[in-house]
Amino acid sequence: MQQQLSFVTLGIGELPRSRRFYVEGFGWSPVFENEEIIFYQMAGFVLGTFLKSALEEDMNRTGLVSPGAFSLAHNVLDKHSVELVMHKLVAAGGTVHRAADVPKHGGFRLCHRSGQSCLGDRLDSGRENR
Amino acid sequence: MQQQLSFVTLGIGELPRSRRFYVEGFGWSPVFENEEIIFYQMAGFVLGTFLKSALEEDMNRTGLVSPGAFSLAHNVLDKHSVELVMHKLVAAGGTVHRAADVPKHGGFRLCHRSGQSCLGDRLDSGRENR
Repeated sequence: MQQQLSFVTLGIGELPRSRRFYVEGFGWSPVFENEEIIFYQMAGFVLGTFLKSALEEDMNRTGLVSPGAFSLAHNVLDKHSVELVMHKLVAAGGTVHRAADVPKHGGFRLCHRSGQSCLGDRLDSGRENR
Repeated sequence: MQQQLSFVTLGIGELPRSRRFYVEGFGWSPVFENEEIIFYQMAGFVLGTFLKSALEEDMNRTGLVSPGAFSLAHNVLDKHSVELVMHKLVAAGGTVHRAADVPKHGGFRLCHRSGQSCLGDRLDSGRENR
């Protein structure tokens, strides 16, 4: 299995404050942004800053604290691989947080605890990272 | 400034449980491990799983909750650059969490809030990632 994470996503209380930190502080440029999420293309993965409430919905969790709210995403090639990897992760002690479904941005995802990771198949090109 | 993170480090309660998840679940191989930290080389950065107490010491914070304990590290080329970047981050709303010092693994680091990041200069080759 590819030894890679596709997204590191932080749950953020105020996007403008976070944007100032990464854009003015680090001098980084967003690759995509809207009212709830900003993506920064890193070398090999994407850093996302996501409104905490939206991240909670995405992860099917509540009460995430910030700082501390984050998710790691590992993308795979197709829907079948999502299910295959998830079975292995559960066998290795992971706990499923949300049943498989189709997120609004497309693709197919599963979220689980133990590392707070989400697994998705190939997302739309604007959010895809392989 | 390079648009990259060098390390994503998770604060972990039990390393063997976490190791099982990443090694048996994902099928990943550690690139380095000891009793307090395990590193996985990703494409472009390193994922670290660090005992939470050790992460707290590293970040000069206490009371991190797990899951939720993590740090992001951005490495730069030299000590001077650590100070330069930190000044910019503070000007952009960041808060310094630990004054500049030399960590036990070598190099030079500063930690700050707002993204829970740490800045370090080039570390020893076993932990370096550029």
